[in-house]
Amino acid sequence: MMANSNWLLPEYIQDVLPEEAWRIEGMRVSILDLLRCSGYQLVVPPLLEYAESLQINDSHDMDLRTFKLVDQLSGRTLALRADITPQVARIDSHLLNRQGITRLCYVGSVLHTQPAGIMRTRELLQIGAELYGHSGLDSDLEIQRLMLQALDLVGVKEVHLDLGHVALFRALISRSRITKKLEAELSSALQGKNVPALRILVADLSPDVQHALMALPMLYGKVDVIARARNELPDYPEVTAALNELEQTADRLQPLAHSIGIDLAELRGYHYHSGMVFAAFHAGSHDAIALGGRYDDVGKSFGRARPATGFSMDLRQLHGLLGYRSQPKGILAPHSDNDVLNKKISQLREQGHTVIVDYLGKVELRSELGCDRELVMRDGAWHVVDIKK
Amino acid sequence: MMANSNWLLPEYIQDVLPEEAWRIEGMRVSILDLLRCSGYQLVVPPLLEYAESLQINDSHDMDLRTFKLVDQLSGRTLALRADITPQVARIDSHLLNRQGITRLCYVGSVLHTQPAGIMRTRELLQIGAELYGHSGLDSDLEIQRLMLQALDLVGVKEVHLDLGHVALFRALISRSRITKKLEAELSSALQGKNVPALRILVADLSPDVQHALMALPMLYGKVDVIARARNELPDYPEVTAALNELEQTADRLQPLAHSIGIDLAELRGYHYHSGMVFAAFHAGSHDAIALGGRYDDVGKSFGRARPATGFSMDLRQLHGLLGYRSQPKGILAPHSDNDVLNKKISQLREQGHTVIVDYLGKVELRSELGCDRELVMRDGAWHVVDIKK
Repeated sequence: MMANSNWLLPEYIQDVLPEEAWRIEGMRVSILDLLRCSGYQLVVPPLLEYAESLQINDSHDMDLRTFKLVDQLSGRTLALRADITPQVARIDSHLLNRQGITRLCYVGSVLHTQPAGIMRTRELLQIGAELYGHSGLDSDLEIQRLMLQALDLVGVKEVHLDLGHVALFRALISRSRITKKLEAELSSALQGKNVPALRILVADLSPDVQHALMALPMLYGKVDVIARARNELPDYPEVTAALNELEQTADRLQPLAHSIGIDLAELRGYHYHSGMVFAAFHAGSHDAIALGGRYDDVGKSFGRARPATGFSMDLRQLHGLLGYRSQPKGILAPHSDNDVLNKKISQLREQGHTVIVDYLGKVELRSELGCDRELVMRDGAWHVVDIKK
Repeated sequence: MMANSNWLLPEYIQDVLPEEAWRIEGMRVSILDLLRCSGYQLVVPPLLEYAESLQINDSHDMDLRTFKLVDQLSGRTLALRADITPQVARIDSHLLNRQGITRLCYVGSVLHTQPAGIMRTRELLQIGAELYGHSGLDSDLEIQRLMLQALDLVGVKEVHLDLGHVALFRALISRSRITKKLEAELSSALQGKNVPALRILVADLSPDVQHALMALPMLYGKVDVIARARNELPDYPEVTAALNELEQTADRLQPLAHSIGIDLAELRGYHYHSGMVFAAFHAGSHDAIALGGRYDDVGKSFGRARPATGFSMDLRQLHGLLGYRSQPKGILAPHSDNDVLNKKISQLREQGHTVIVDYLGKVELRSELGCDRELVMRDGAWHVVDIKK
């Protein structure tokens, strides 16, 4: 390796440079503040854990996307987290051990061995909130509202909210006594809206389940999909309850979203979701910009299943959607031992201004310092004046 | 592996739980704000890089403390950063490529394969600032002042500042034509103040260098050490310049530190430091709580050496020094569809209050929610009142 290529980074790994870094930092602080005021408590799980602790419900896909390494202290396999949600579920079930509702939030880096798409990165800055210990619609609504508020707060407007409900598919499957393998194939065909594959897979199922599974891929669009679904799907109690939840959610969140869609074949995260799932979309991105759902059984792998719902988003991806917004510029100050000047500099900084002391005093290098004002002495006092161009 | 031990974490790896997490988050925001107002621009280098990019001047010690893993995309070895400073130097030399002074700051996790001491962790939250492109004492002073201000800001009081200067040892070595191996052994014996070992190692050197190297381990204590050093060490120009820098620094920083010490055998980070080095200590910790120094040659491995000085500290370690400080508690709100109530909740949250909606309404679980006030309806309006104990 030549020394002069040491500055090259691995593929899909990036530095975040100043302007962008401050803006992402600002988004982080605003969203954490929103979550704090809504009663969410911050937790910071570690970047590294034993590999098996980070695996949830045997998700093969997540396992492939997780970096593994060897712990020199124990000889065991460690994993770099590819998602923070399982860690927060672990904290809820084991460390806090509360009986009532627990609201937790987090922000931190996650790493993937492969990028999820061509435009994506392998290092995400995940921020999210989770609500444990409540299984009613109110907590689903609280989490979805927070997600939409957070997007609005950081300047992502005209958000489309897509709603789905994993319980529909589960209800159909649970009455069919099918193998785990067929279940996985069916969910994958549904998720991909692959109707020809689906037709083959349902061949041996009962006629009403067959009809319902074949209907799911067509049940997407505006909110009127729910009414269509009531005709197309069998009236099992779980199906009716799920459709009622979707209807109420669409109705209640309508003022907060630019548009709301329903997609009853949406089974993203089927291996751990158990109820309503949702995703936010924006014209600037092909992928979802924030997503979440109910996952009542996740705590089970830590010995204590609790009702749970939550959302997460990647602050770096969100930042990419926002147009360029220039950061406030600084005030240039001459370098001097003058006490009055240095006191003035301290005062300005305490007021929140950025003041940059110019040690070199070279006019040709000033533009690098990013200042639009400067401190000058006039009539025996220091004043902040605009820099003449 | 039994499912019910999935909540166990690897040794020296911890979760940060709510109260502590909010306090550390507050420290992070305060220090970043101090750095922003002083003209430091935030950069966020990646957690993972090619292993060779993270190695600076062949530091064997740092290499051993760095986790390695294989990149599935390139087949090359990646490393999890064990220090952020080399990454920031890379950004200065390659990405920003400015001619004048560049001030950069950062905050992020670093991971070590082994803890540095029994009380330490393998995951640190490193925050720091670096100043590139200026080799005079002013930039050393600016960086040390910022470090002391940052400690004061987050509540770490009575800080002892220890000063050293790597140029003293380098000046003695550069006139002795010794092997790299002997140089490394000498620096290690000096750093450990191992006088017997030192006596053997200096045996073949010239009498004045021998005398000076044997004097260094005794040259520690209060500021009067500098006067003693002027007598004990040869008056090479580099030696005089280094002692002058230490004297001026001690003089100028005296108002900001509880006490200042000099240690002329301090060679921490000798493999990349080149000038003044410093460390902050506190009665609550055996290890330094913040440290830094001048390292003018680090950019070299990225093809562009620039004068540089900086400091860094671990926010989790700092938090451990602070006594318990309770976080503000929340306001409990009943769960209802009442519009007036929900408007009141939104208003309180916009004012920065934490308002927690009690979906369960179970009196026995209320204490888990961390509220000391509640919203109650009185005389037709909602009021915040203290919760009776």
